[in-house]
Amino acid sequence: MLRSQALNAKKTTRDLCVVRVTSARNFSASARRSEQHLVILGSGWGGYELLRGIDKRRWNVTIVSPTNYFNFTPLLAGCAVGTLEFRSAVEPVRRYTPRVNAYQAWCDNIDFKQRTICCMPATPPLPSHYHQHVIGNGHEHAQAPTERKALTPVEQGVGTTSPPAVLQERFKLRYDKLIIAVGAYSRTFNIPGVKEHAYFLKDIKDARRIRSRILECFEQANQPTITDDDRRKLLHFCIVGGGPTGVEFAAELHDLLHAEIKQHFPQLARMAKISLYDVAPQILGSFDVGLQEWAARKFTRKGINILTQHHVERVEEGGMFVTEQGEVNFGMLVWSTGLAPNPLVSSINEIEKDTRTGSLLTDEHLNVLMKDSGKPDPDVWAIGDAAIIKGQPLPATAQVANQKAKYLFKKLNRIVKGKSHPTEFNFVNAGSLAYIGDWQAVYDRTSAAKGPKTKETGRLAWLLWRSAYFTMTLSLKNKILVPTYWFMNWIFGRDLSRF
Amino acid sequence: MLRSQALNAKKTTRDLCVVRVTSARNFSASARRSEQHLVILGSGWGGYELLRGIDKRRWNVTIVSPTNYFNFTPLLAGCAVGTLEFRSAVEPVRRYTPRVNAYQAWCDNIDFKQRTICCMPATPPLPSHYHQHVIGNGHEHAQAPTERKALTPVEQGVGTTSPPAVLQERFKLRYDKLIIAVGAYSRTFNIPGVKEHAYFLKDIKDARRIRSRILECFEQANQPTITDDDRRKLLHFCIVGGGPTGVEFAAELHDLLHAEIKQHFPQLARMAKISLYDVAPQILGSFDVGLQEWAARKFTRKGINILTQHHVERVEEGGMFVTEQGEVNFGMLVWSTGLAPNPLVSSINEIEKDTRTGSLLTDEHLNVLMKDSGKPDPDVWAIGDAAIIKGQPLPATAQVANQKAKYLFKKLNRIVKGKSHPTEFNFVNAGSLAYIGDWQAVYDRTSAAKGPKTKETGRLAWLLWRSAYFTMTLSLKNKILVPTYWFMNWIFGRDLSRF
Repeated sequence: MLRSQALNAKKTTRDLCVVRVTSARNFSASARRSEQHLVILGSGWGGYELLRGIDKRRWNVTIVSPTNYFNFTPLLAGCAVGTLEFRSAVEPVRRYTPRVNAYQAWCDNIDFKQRTICCMPATPPLPSHYHQHVIGNGHEHAQAPTERKALTPVEQGVGTTSPPAVLQERFKLRYDKLIIAVGAYSRTFNIPGVKEHAYFLKDIKDARRIRSRILECFEQANQPTITDDDRRKLLHFCIVGGGPTGVEFAAELHDLLHAEIKQHFPQLARMAKISLYDVAPQILGSFDVGLQEWAARKFTRKGINILTQHHVERVEEGGMFVTEQGEVNFGMLVWSTGLAPNPLVSSINEIEKDTRTGSLLTDEHLNVLMKDSGKPDPDVWAIGDAAIIKGQPLPATAQVANQKAKYLFKKLNRIVKGKSHPTEFNFVNAGSLAYIGDWQAVYDRTSAAKGPKTKETGRLAWLLWRSAYFTMTLSLKNKILVPTYWFMNWIFGRDLSRF
Repeated sequence: MLRSQALNAKKTTRDLCVVRVTSARNFSASARRSEQHLVILGSGWGGYELLRGIDKRRWNVTIVSPTNYFNFTPLLAGCAVGTLEFRSAVEPVRRYTPRVNAYQAWCDNIDFKQRTICCMPATPPLPSHYHQHVIGNGHEHAQAPTERKALTPVEQGVGTTSPPAVLQERFKLRYDKLIIAVGAYSRTFNIPGVKEHAYFLKDIKDARRIRSRILECFEQANQPTITDDDRRKLLHFCIVGGGPTGVEFAAELHDLLHAEIKQHFPQLARMAKISLYDVAPQILGSFDVGLQEWAARKFTRKGINILTQHHVERVEEGGMFVTEQGEVNFGMLVWSTGLAPNPLVSSINEIEKDTRTGSLLTDEHLNVLMKDSGKPDPDVWAIGDAAIIKGQPLPATAQVANQKAKYLFKKLNRIVKGKSHPTEFNFVNAGSLAYIGDWQAVYDRTSAAKGPKTKETGRLAWLLWRSAYFTMTLSLKNKILVPTYWFMNWIFGRDLSRF
């Protein structure tokens, strides 16, 4: 319907991007029953779950995300040490094409009045000597790419997939309904050097980098030219952030060191050390105090150094400065200290924001609250780590994002049929799980509003932890592959090939 | 025994590298029965098979290779399009540590008189602010790294794992027996731009790059800002080299395009094109003429352009200049036109070489032929793509390398027991197989010296092709994983996630 309809860039004054309105249907295969354009921004726990559940026959769905897959984040720590293979922890967005339109792009501007979004391709630019932008092939004659809009975030967090340095021509998409599920970046507290020298663990690419680096540290330390002193530095693995991600990674790494590494690098394994840093007085701050202490005792007994109430001031290549310790050398530093707002979220001025986190504020129906009117926008929702319900802050977890997405696709699937859906979103706490190594975990459901308040430690919690995945957003393929890998690596050991 | 024994660099005049003789046993766990040092250079079809078969209780084995894994090369084309997962086509060298010593390093010099090799770590240098080279920890005080020895190869081929730009301290290893199995580089005929802009397919890292690039081309072409003209350029996949590697990759790519790509990018799939170039008048030059023609007919019917007798003059980003066609644009170029000598092989002047290929010449016992004495060195062997038997040239294939390695480890296992092994190496041609897509293959055993001369095409040859892998150098783990992936991807389709 919009195939040849093109807005002129000069007419929309607030957008710096080159304007080309393209129908979201441009590349779709079949005719739609509905002409209603539903645009989803992001393919994480919120966006991907919404994509899964939305009625694709009734909505004309477009998903815009800088990656063309969904990260099953609880499995990333396992992937990072080789307990699982990378691809079994991701789900392709392309599974749903061509029924939905998918663009691998960043949304960098939303025009709430015109109901359009402006996107920049997240793929590399064309080779310079292709004859770009041929006139008269049904497209508007494109103009030269303009400067990327300057973002002024509260904190410049670190995104795994960052916009490229090279400017590219942008495109616009019109929406009737918009879901903002762009997630958040990693928080670095603006500590110098973190972005350049630390490893994050939010994306499968991060897990791949970490796995490669761990094995590299051991191959490096194995060179006969290296002194024992340097070996100990290379085999010091630091983790900053004592939340579930940091704790689970420390646990998985400990498992690797005490299994395949010990077997194949016996001398070097004795020199390896794991240190877990946090500014807080306890690890697993969001868990029940009894569980925190149990996990800390387990870690201490394993030989993992827990360095709570420690402050990192500066990070360099192979080392960092800690207030309480001075210079600390390491072979690898993994950084996991929470979330910083996504640049898109930072750049949006029309929506009310949470003062503490900078997230978008929504009402109980998950509609964003507009600043000027003070009312919710009936056609725009925000879910996941990018959003908080005003007056009802929930933790920025996969579970919350997933439940919000489920609530929202049910609502949208009723709306498209002309039915109403007045119920407010209600979070049901299913409890928190964290793996702490050696086939043991902690499970916390003490803060649940309804149902039995329970907590669990050890092998039973581990069984809960593993079985939990099979009820979650994994495809049948990965529901087969994940236990296959667990079994294969249990029998044959994790692979130490580095590539 | 050599723990504290260090040669002085100044004494050995011909080595430019910093000398530090380190016992190959430095990091081994258990005491050896034999004090005989056997050093294997390379972890390909020759080196890895030798490592598998050698008696590790009787030999003190050290393997030196820039990668810590073995590439199961016939599966790389499948990995490059996602029919298989990467890790199922590699086998870790570390499986055999600490029983053997393994160093991830390049050997860049062999002193046949002193019986030492000089190696440079293939891992990155230490972070600059580690306190390197502490004096008095049992190691010699190291000197500053010197310039890397200039190599003057016949042709500067392309290696997948190339020596780093940063110089590192080298180390020396003593050998009693040495096996040179360093393989070869990709041949580029010194055509400008090939090294920079083409993709090779010799290592699992290459396969990963290719897979990522194929998916990138489609995501790029899917951007609404791209013209149809540019889409056709992006989706033009060129392959230069009509040997088994090029043909199998073309076939696998065609399978991908006509399955998952057609399903998920229906419009774009119609714009995709595969072109297979060769300077020769036929593809699969090493095969029987009837099979060549059959394969070419199949390819033509599929829509794969066979451009034999075409000459590439120059390659640029996204395009190349072909004598017969002029400028040709592409989204990806895969280069597979045979082998060029490895830099180590090029630098060896003491051994007789084949004038055509530049490979090391050996006698029928696979001992290298020394130039000065005109006799074989009784303690040095060369196998695989780096070696040719004088007067009995065999093709540079995995099969030949594998059989030479088997012959050699049997010989060495007899030698260490004090038994003789006078038999000459004898190649038994098991035939050649090439996959040509759509569950069909060609099988050629017409040039076999002994046994039935057969050839086969189609589904039966395909079954032979697939089942052949299960008799080969694959671990039990991968013998389970490979068919699991074939089955899973047949049922669920190949994954299109790009990371």
